[in-house]
Amino acid sequence: MTTTRRDFLKKAAFAGAGIATTTLGTNAAEKQNTIAPQKKRTPSKSGKIRVGFIGTGFRSQEHFNNILSFPDTEIVAICDVSDFSLNMTKETFKKREKEFPKVYKGGELEYENMLKKEEFDVIIISSPWEWHVPMSVAAMKAGVPYVGVEVSAANTMKECWDLVNTSEETGSQLMILENVCYRRDVMAALKMAREGLFGELLHCRCGYEHDLRAVKFNDGKSYSYVPGTDLKMGPGAIGEAVWRTFHSINRNGDIYPTHGIGPVGNWLNINYGNRFTSLSSMTTKSRGLHKFIVDNGGANHPYANIDFKLGDIVTTMINTVKGETIIVTHDTNSPRPYSLGFRLQGTEGVWYNDGDTLYIEGQSKPHQWDKSGDWFGKYDHSLWKKYGDEAQNAGHGGMDYIMMTDLFNAIRENRPVPLDCYDAAAWSAISALSEESIAQGGILVDFPDFTCGKWINRKPYFAMEI
Amino acid sequence: MTTTRRDFLKKAAFAGAGIATTTLGTNAAEKQNTIAPQKKRTPSKSGKIRVGFIGTGFRSQEHFNNILSFPDTEIVAICDVSDFSLNMTKETFKKREKEFPKVYKGGELEYENMLKKEEFDVIIISSPWEWHVPMSVAAMKAGVPYVGVEVSAANTMKECWDLVNTSEETGSQLMILENVCYRRDVMAALKMAREGLFGELLHCRCGYEHDLRAVKFNDGKSYSYVPGTDLKMGPGAIGEAVWRTFHSINRNGDIYPTHGIGPVGNWLNINYGNRFTSLSSMTTKSRGLHKFIVDNGGANHPYANIDFKLGDIVTTMINTVKGETIIVTHDTNSPRPYSLGFRLQGTEGVWYNDGDTLYIEGQSKPHQWDKSGDWFGKYDHSLWKKYGDEAQNAGHGGMDYIMMTDLFNAIRENRPVPLDCYDAAAWSAISALSEESIAQGGILVDFPDFTCGKWINRKPYFAMEI
Repeated sequence: MTTTRRDFLKKAAFAGAGIATTTLGTNAAEKQNTIAPQKKRTPSKSGKIRVGFIGTGFRSQEHFNNILSFPDTEIVAICDVSDFSLNMTKETFKKREKEFPKVYKGGELEYENMLKKEEFDVIIISSPWEWHVPMSVAAMKAGVPYVGVEVSAANTMKECWDLVNTSEETGSQLMILENVCYRRDVMAALKMAREGLFGELLHCRCGYEHDLRAVKFNDGKSYSYVPGTDLKMGPGAIGEAVWRTFHSINRNGDIYPTHGIGPVGNWLNINYGNRFTSLSSMTTKSRGLHKFIVDNGGANHPYANIDFKLGDIVTTMINTVKGETIIVTHDTNSPRPYSLGFRLQGTEGVWYNDGDTLYIEGQSKPHQWDKSGDWFGKYDHSLWKKYGDEAQNAGHGGMDYIMMTDLFNAIRENRPVPLDCYDAAAWSAISALSEESIAQGGILVDFPDFTCGKWINRKPYFAMEI
Repeated sequence: MTTTRRDFLKKAAFAGAGIATTTLGTNAAEKQNTIAPQKKRTPSKSGKIRVGFIGTGFRSQEHFNNILSFPDTEIVAICDVSDFSLNMTKETFKKREKEFPKVYKGGELEYENMLKKEEFDVIIISSPWEWHVPMSVAAMKAGVPYVGVEVSAANTMKECWDLVNTSEETGSQLMILENVCYRRDVMAALKMAREGLFGELLHCRCGYEHDLRAVKFNDGKSYSYVPGTDLKMGPGAIGEAVWRTFHSINRNGDIYPTHGIGPVGNWLNINYGNRFTSLSSMTTKSRGLHKFIVDNGGANHPYANIDFKLGDIVTTMINTVKGETIIVTHDTNSPRPYSLGFRLQGTEGVWYNDGDTLYIEGQSKPHQWDKSGDWFGKYDHSLWKKYGDEAQNAGHGGMDYIMMTDLFNAIRENRPVPLDCYDAAAWSAISALSEESIAQGGILVDFPDFTCGKWINRKPYFAMEI
């Protein structure tokens, strides 16, 4: 019975966690009183929206390009520790013929200095994952009214709560910059779901199925590993190989869930009349990264001894309070074409992203798939109808442009952000909860309610038709 | 702590079940001694293989057609309670210009009478699910050397053990008639996996995603429900609507897992060096059957008050002892085109059934899918190469013909069956285990080891190249 006793103790620990959550829940009324009103912007001298950047790497270049095209904004200051990134940024501004902003460069905490000295309407944070929450919290506490943070927003349960609590206490609006929520097909699916074409929703799938092996290692010159070159991670590398790879060494769970779960969260109105209740996660053995090192660097490569904790394919099943289920996949160490693997299924129809097929009862031919593109063309979301041309010109499929447009429209109108701290927390929480589940072979783990009951009455807000 | 105590008691109950299994495991050596040698056939007067049928409904017509084409077999007797099925069978024999066999018709246990009076080399059982195990056990105990039972083989854990224990005690060979194991693409995938094209296997998906609403109800005349006609189940209906629908009323789990898990079991060598260790299952709410009744029979239809237990979409995640994971789906109450949703993924490649795409590292163009058909054409399994032409002429894609050929080749040569009692038990066990998991929100449940340790040394046997 030793095993059972151990299981029981583990279970008791979780029950304890559950009780803590419930306590927060019952004190929800009290907690509501501590929620600050939305922080308003102070008008700038120029009348423009003052933008700051923490982190200026590859990801930020997209954001620079999009924000620089908004005539009513000015990027007043940027902060980074990396000369490589700052030089890349200088090139971007040069190409766009824009004035290079003030640069904060120094120690790892230099961003605190920037936040103290400058005044911003919005801070964009595109830094390594482990810095997302400290930087977001610092920006909100410094009084910045809007903070946009890259994905995943948070790595641990404490970090999830930190985002929520700080946003509630300061009144600053925290947006999770989940660009896939703005993908054209994903938004058309949202529109179809809202118009009832899929009937009552039942089941969704999603994931991040992206062969990142050549991103997790490089030679410090090329972003993506080139066969025959040196295989490095950490300080000798560039881009995500500097830091992301270490999450594969130290963690085993769905460490990057939001590209998948963000769209699903919107389809299922998570935090807006619905919420995640529990999950179970399982993982395969870890083979891909070790094999990649041996295949490219040889069996004697110094990395060949690394024990990568991250299982190659992590799958997570989630229950919602409204009786839907979700499957989320994380698959970044295996050879495969890219996919986010969406599926959206209800009592009257279903969409498969893989294969791009769609079926609506009574409209599709019985037992035959339609091409999803034919449907999505008819149900193009109004954000894409309005901004689609500009977005397409902005490159990268345009979803980043639409996302930034949606965020900046909220800033212009002093509205809440489209994807807020509760979305950031609920979506990101999958990482820590899946690690907990996997560490115990796939046990069922409860989700906390980051809204403390507010999900019951919150009305859908993201991407309502304009 | 009341909830925790209750959970603990539930958990203790499962731990108890686990201990019982372990006891069987530790007594494996003792149990080995009770395993009878394989039951050999007694030659018939005619020299032909003597075949008996229990159950002669729609499914059996396929089997009649295939077996009647084997010149060295004779169907000596058949048994059913249904005049409808027996008449249908008479027509089949007439069309094929074959002599109609002796008929046993009487009470529900008339098959026992047939088993007592006739001598068979093989019995084929295609009856309602709840009769599979009693009939299989009776046939084995009656000394029939080969028993083929339709899918799923068993509904409860006790039934799974009954199949294993009876086969071991009698020496009779029990084959689970899982035809999808013989599907041409599934077998090509098996060949590719065995030849190492996918590398070390990591993750598989499969399921039974088949809109059966019009099969679960009909008017007693047409097998598939015709809109505008009467909506019946039970004695007034025909085909599966007579009995299958009641499993949707009374059970909530993956009640039909083997079309998916059979092929996956073969790919991953389950029971042959590998085994399932644990699962977690979740389900959506139940909407589809109620909606179908109201949509077609009106809100006042007598069935509109039925509380269907079966969630519309059931998903199950499974761990294996070798560190692979599997996702199995059961989806029979929703409008959708048919799919078994296979995925087969390893360290060097991946096949998606949905979309029919395949990728092999170093051979496919980087980050681009190939058409799976192009690969499967090159890796056609030798059973299909040899019997493919005859199979295609037999109709229904030919997999039933290949399956029967494989079973009858084993009978001809007095060999063990290709898919045996351990396969039947391990695959079918998903039903009962998923019901247990779902009843508690998705908790992790352990698989018993039906082989009692024999899986460690058993060598792959199914469909070795000929």
